[in-house]
Amino acid sequence: PVLTGLPSNSPKLIDLLDDTVPGIGTYEDFNTIDWVREKSKDRDRHREITNKSKHSTVALLFSISDAFSGWLLMLLIGLMSGALAGGIDIAAHWMTDLKEGVCLNGFWFNHEHCCWASNETTFQERDKCPQWKTWAELMVGVSEQGSVNVLNHFMYVSWALLFAFLAVILVRAFAPYACGSGIPEIKTILSGFIIRGYLGKWTLIIKTITLVLAVSSGLSLGKEGPLVHVACCCANILCHFFTKYRRNEAKRREVLSAASAVGVSVAFGAPIGGVLFSLEEVSYYFPLKTLWRSFFAALVAAFTLRSINPFGNSRLVLFYVEFHTPWHLLELIPFVLLGIFGGLWGAFFIHANIAWCRLRKNTRLGHYPVIEVLVVTLLTALLAFPIEYTRMSSSELISELFNDCGLLDSSKLCGYTSNSGSTSGSVNATAANGLGARLAGPGLYTAMWQLALALVFKMLITVATFGIKVTDLDVFLKAKQNIRAQASKHFFFFLISTLGGVTRMTVSLVVIMFELTGGLEYIVPLMAATMTSKWVADALSRESIYEAHIRLNGYPFLEAKEEFRHKTLATDVMRPRQSDPPLSVLTQSGMSVEEVERLIADTTYSGFPVVISQQSQRLVGFVLRRDLVISLENARRHQEGVVSVSAVLFTECDPPASPSAPPAVKLHNILDLSPFTVTVHTPMEIVVDIFRKLGLRQCLVIQNGRLLGIITKKDILKHMAQMANRDPESILFN
Amino acid sequence: PVLTGLPSNSPKLIDLLDDTVPGIGTYEDFNTIDWVREKSKDRDRHREITNKSKHSTVALLFSISDAFSGWLLMLLIGLMSGALAGGIDIAAHWMTDLKEGVCLNGFWFNHEHCCWASNETTFQERDKCPQWKTWAELMVGVSEQGSVNVLNHFMYVSWALLFAFLAVILVRAFAPYACGSGIPEIKTILSGFIIRGYLGKWTLIIKTITLVLAVSSGLSLGKEGPLVHVACCCANILCHFFTKYRRNEAKRREVLSAASAVGVSVAFGAPIGGVLFSLEEVSYYFPLKTLWRSFFAALVAAFTLRSINPFGNSRLVLFYVEFHTPWHLLELIPFVLLGIFGGLWGAFFIHANIAWCRLRKNTRLGHYPVIEVLVVTLLTALLAFPIEYTRMSSSELISELFNDCGLLDSSKLCGYTSNSGSTSGSVNATAANGLGARLAGPGLYTAMWQLALALVFKMLITVATFGIKVTDLDVFLKAKQNIRAQASKHFFFFLISTLGGVTRMTVSLVVIMFELTGGLEYIVPLMAATMTSKWVADALSRESIYEAHIRLNGYPFLEAKEEFRHKTLATDVMRPRQSDPPLSVLTQSGMSVEEVERLIADTTYSGFPVVISQQSQRLVGFVLRRDLVISLENARRHQEGVVSVSAVLFTECDPPASPSAPPAVKLHNILDLSPFTVTVHTPMEIVVDIFRKLGLRQCLVIQNGRLLGIITKKDILKHMAQMANRDPESILFN
Repeated sequence: PVLTGLPSNSPKLIDLLDDTVPGIGTYEDFNTIDWVREKSKDRDRHREITNKSKHSTVALLFSISDAFSGWLLMLLIGLMSGALAGGIDIAAHWMTDLKEGVCLNGFWFNHEHCCWASNETTFQERDKCPQWKTWAELMVGVSEQGSVNVLNHFMYVSWALLFAFLAVILVRAFAPYACGSGIPEIKTILSGFIIRGYLGKWTLIIKTITLVLAVSSGLSLGKEGPLVHVACCCANILCHFFTKYRRNEAKRREVLSAASAVGVSVAFGAPIGGVLFSLEEVSYYFPLKTLWRSFFAALVAAFTLRSINPFGNSRLVLFYVEFHTPWHLLELIPFVLLGIFGGLWGAFFIHANIAWCRLRKNTRLGHYPVIEVLVVTLLTALLAFPIEYTRMSSSELISELFNDCGLLDSSKLCGYTSNSGSTSGSVNATAANGLGARLAGPGLYTAMWQLALALVFKMLITVATFGIKVTDLDVFLKAKQNIRAQASKHFFFFLISTLGGVTRMTVSLVVIMFELTGGLEYIVPLMAATMTSKWVADALSRESIYEAHIRLNGYPFLEAKEEFRHKTLATDVMRPRQSDPPLSVLTQSGMSVEEVERLIADTTYSGFPVVISQQSQRLVGFVLRRDLVISLENARRHQEGVVSVSAVLFTECDPPASPSAPPAVKLHNILDLSPFTVTVHTPMEIVVDIFRKLGLRQCLVIQNGRLLGIITKKDILKHMAQMANRDPESILFN
Repeated sequence: PVLTGLPSNSPKLIDLLDDTVPGIGTYEDFNTIDWVREKSKDRDRHREITNKSKHSTVALLFSISDAFSGWLLMLLIGLMSGALAGGIDIAAHWMTDLKEGVCLNGFWFNHEHCCWASNETTFQERDKCPQWKTWAELMVGVSEQGSVNVLNHFMYVSWALLFAFLAVILVRAFAPYACGSGIPEIKTILSGFIIRGYLGKWTLIIKTITLVLAVSSGLSLGKEGPLVHVACCCANILCHFFTKYRRNEAKRREVLSAASAVGVSVAFGAPIGGVLFSLEEVSYYFPLKTLWRSFFAALVAAFTLRSINPFGNSRLVLFYVEFHTPWHLLELIPFVLLGIFGGLWGAFFIHANIAWCRLRKNTRLGHYPVIEVLVVTLLTALLAFPIEYTRMSSSELISELFNDCGLLDSSKLCGYTSNSGSTSGSVNATAANGLGARLAGPGLYTAMWQLALALVFKMLITVATFGIKVTDLDVFLKAKQNIRAQASKHFFFFLISTLGGVTRMTVSLVVIMFELTGGLEYIVPLMAATMTSKWVADALSRESIYEAHIRLNGYPFLEAKEEFRHKTLATDVMRPRQSDPPLSVLTQSGMSVEEVERLIADTTYSGFPVVISQQSQRLVGFVLRRDLVISLENARRHQEGVVSVSAVLFTECDPPASPSAPPAVKLHNILDLSPFTVTVHTPMEIVVDIFRKLGLRQCLVIQNGRLLGIITKKDILKHMAQMANRDPESILFN
């Protein structure tokens, strides 16, 4: 609206587009953007290009390249994210193995590659070969003795500590924004908030490196959440090469929506699921155009990752699962029960996570992140090493659990887990915790408490595994496989339900699993389990882990899922309240530069309504504080003869003034002539709806043509917090 | 807004909710609903139930049942649509076979079932058995002679004519709305238009029966488009059993969105694709809640259909395809080329279809639908019978084309089509036409022209098939299979691209194909082909077949995909224009019943703004014509002492009046105190955005607090038509 005034000021329009007054139309850090204004700006830009393209061939070519730049950008994001994800997978795999030993043929081989290259590997024992030395073998020279095991254990713990220390130091020193899973912040950014540097190049570099370090150190965290952040960083950086996206916050957010689809696409190897994740979980404004582009980018990324083939199995993920056994209608009962457990566990997870984060925020615990990380890593590594299944990474464990048992299979699980129901139960819980953490997956600082829980379960597994080591091996192999298939199916369902309970995703989760398992066979029971899980978790607390974190951090996020159901009116929310002084307004003429500057200095509002006169209070328009400050400074510096008593005019035509008066400062071009208005009687449910759907920053309240007050996004959020019996002061930003 | 006034009139609110003044808050036929008002109504209802539930257990139970009624409704829709689709499949299969012969074991068996039951069927010749008699065998008694063939041909044509005649007569006599594919109308209804009876029970019954008849008569039309209409009819009928949905047009549209997902789910056996189809193609308002429910309903429907198992292959569709051969990067070139051809063909299809429909509308051709159908059926049947591949239904042909060739396969295609490229080319084209028609699939009247085109291709196939009958059979079987696989792959891609060009779907189409082929293998080339097809078709004409039909019928549909890019302002669009008489307004007090009634009689506007006084033109609210008429009639009939000179008051408090004056008619309760307003300077792009996102019917235009004009949805559509150089008078409804 600011830039699309009457045709008469179109020269100014072009000036503004070319940024001759630098800063006008931009935003400060930790502020909310105005979607309507951004979209208008983009339409103006597009119109200008289209008009020019009718006159010259160069402009026509430019117009065509502009039209396709969106698709090109998507291609680049897909390629870059896919390549990065592949690199992360390979590096994490290698470094995880490095904790146990090294390859003599070249230290850059991981365990599996090292033994592939060897001639002495047998089919039965694929993972044993002379080229691969554990650290103890390398240092002491003898294998499989008591002291050797202790030495291996020591090396394992040392490497883990080293990786964790490096990760936490890098994050602290170079990119504090690289901590955490990043999804709550990305959700907030997509809804129109500005956090400078959150998606910058330093965050990208450090996040990529520390992600590898953190996963390799054996901490119970997955790469799936952070990969969304990495993809969004890629997108943000690539946006800088395209004027269309660099200059426009709304357009850039469309690209970021697509990037979050790309992140999930490479994390789970599920392009369709990624698009639905972006649509269901993180995006705020998701037009059809973005849907198509997201899908394209997600496909390119998945294709790139597959070309890199980091797992050597032609699959996009390590834990590709195939269920082909049909299910019986009665089986729905255990599936729904698992859904209930998953929902309960998910709600508990969120509650505990938030409690721990709050503790860290409010006590001295938060002052020692490095020590916290090291202690947790030490404990994890010490306890994880003795048992084979906790020593391996979570993805490997899942892959181990789901691989079909053949007669020649080297996995010991094929013989083992079938013996007792309780065993598979606790194995499940551990891995579920691992994967539950995976998407919710906070990065370094924020997720420490998960580790504590994971430890409990890793201890449980210890007991369980020791328990079965003494049982027999080869009786009723067939029957056992059957039990194992059942157990892994139930494990899988519990895992999905937990994820559902933690993130409250439903459709996207089912589609991700559909792509992972590659068949419609289990889609009905999966849906039943995830829906149950969501209902149960929703009944306990309405917020998903992301929303809980957004609220914890006080970001101004207007949730689109929850309907506002209270019976308040605009008049109850608008400022000023009845006891407050009247609204600070500007008049369209008759104010001097000094008066305007004093008003700016006395208040902290981010914008001022402009009225015809203080008496009539008839609304003319709205002007943003930032634009006003910049324009006045600019006028004082560059316009001849502007002094403190110069008039400030928001009208187009000059009012009659005495010839001796100093020249007036004309600010008609920064005035938004079409501010959004509601009446005092408008129910808040409609106001909230307008704010959500149009992405407003503020809205003026009028009654019978007179301006009475203003409602900002922050006012609405505070009001909503109040109606939900929460502290309205928890909303921190505009 | 109307019903959510100040707390003081809450008794009236309850009255209105209980419909004591019948008709207030409802709409007339062929009018647009006000989404904001409908959603407000639903929130009020919900609030009331929640409040009551705190006081009694019965109310609490009612509140819980109300919360789950949405899910129950989805379950019912899924079950009903799935069962209907299964029934249609079985009936169409039987009646298609009935044209050729009858089963002696029982006339209700189709060819396949008849021979399954027989002991004399050999594995080599599964479709030959003595129990199945062609009509000629039954009547003349000898098989395979010249005259027999003529008799069979005659019977085939007669049955086809009978089916087509029955179909067209049923539609004409009982449910004219059952004609056509129905998707354009459903799209319009979902955007907030009212067409009474379009989704009624007669339409459902007749559409189901005639769908079977039309498909069986051998016309080149598929059941996929109409199945969406059938599912929506089911949803609409089931809505009547739930107060929540019966009374609220907005809530009902949410259910219909889900139902269209169900329709595609059962048509293609693709639940996820169905949900995306609803999201991408038909829905207007698609909140996340609807996404979850659509998904649930689509799954239930697919599950029901699978339980019925109409094709006896445990698949949801007859033409389940499996591609597992990997593709080479260079293959992208032919795939993209096929995409280009598909896009061209799709654009041509739309153009020809619309031209034919316009011809029928404007000339005498439209007066003889029965004769038109019969002529086309006659031609189709006459020409289709001689060749095996045109005699079978399109789905069977596709299934035949894609089944893997085994050594024992009875399909002659395994030996044949491999010989010449041209053959498979024309086979492709025919079937592509069949499937292209499938989704675009107009029903009886509107799709006649397709048949003409189909005929041309059926003739081409005749030539082609005669051409290969003479070639050898058994040489290089392996090599041929290879060629056939290539050909069917290319055919498949052409088919998809055509569908993409006709409907302009991309993501949903790819996902549907993903679910049909059951693998991610071909998702990248599919995406490349459909995107190319969409771009090519968009370059030729912007509209999909559905939008073209909506425009042809003059429905008031505000397209959400296309951005409004012109630089006009609200002042250019609003009524009254500068030369017109001033806006007809009501004043909040000071008008008599007679004056109001005269204003109503003199104008045709569907609503009137209410201002403080004619001089100030300060806006108070907006009142709908229908509500005003009903309230005045009600007052004249039931309120004591109301005469023509009685005052009409829109204020809450009584103005001082002489005691002798007749009692005033108070209409404060029907006044919308929070009408949407924009300023004269608001760019039309923002106005269009507001209308789209909030679903408005009208919006008032003010300048500096004074009411200047009004913009309705029809005004916007007319303006858009004008800007696109089309006839603004083509928009017919409000």
